[in-house]
Amino acid sequence: MSAVNDNLIASAAPDPEAEQFHSILARDGVRIERIVSTGQASPPGFWYDQPHGEWVLLLQGQATVRFHDEADARRLDPGDHVWIEPHRRHRVERTSAAPPAIWLAVHIGAGT
Amino acid sequence: MSAVNDNLIASAAPDPEAEQFHSILARDGVRIERIVSTGQASPPGFWYDQPHGEWVLLLQGQATVRFHDEADARRLDPGDHVWIEPHRRHRVERTSAAPPAIWLAVHIGAGT
Repeated sequence: MSAVNDNLIASAAPDPEAEQFHSILARDGVRIERIVSTGQASPPGFWYDQPHGEWVLLLQGQATVRFHDEADARRLDPGDHVWIEPHRRHRVERTSAAPPAIWLAVHIGAGT
Repeated sequence: MSAVNDNLIASAAPDPEAEQFHSILARDGVRIERIVSTGQASPPGFWYDQPHGEWVLLLQGQATVRFHDEADARRLDPGDHVWIEPHRRHRVERTSAAPPAIWLAVHIGAGT
């Protein structure tokens, strides 16, 4: 994972083939990263189940996330944010490719 | 301090008289907040000297911050971010009023 020090939006170099993860800061059990998505989604039937908490904020584009314990998916626009409790199962149903979806993720908890 | 659950940008209700601080999440020694500034700056000669680390990201508007150990101030545009080490003295030289400057701050460290 490379680091990003420049502007989080201007320095994004989207790759249509794969999501990109850039570390911004890791300190005292907290890790801040930028994720650049270009249409990727979680595989069908796949659910993330993370041992740590994650707060995500969409900075650009659109995305749709779904929690296993909610009937409806949540559509995210820039400025929308979601707190994902440890072990709360979730998936990414959709991300925009044009413009790319740029996420800020703050991982909270030991071992992140 | 009130909480904000809605879109961080759309739900901002700028107050020309005072900066506004809204808590988004507090967990495991981490506190995420939104700050909405409308032209405020640190008083002349005032320097913040914080015992904890703070990572800030500008989401909207413009701002200028200065570190005591740097000759030049840093101009921030949306997407620009700054890591402020504990006890690194700094001040806010300027914030935009139109549009308001919207900051995301991640406070990292015990007691935040």
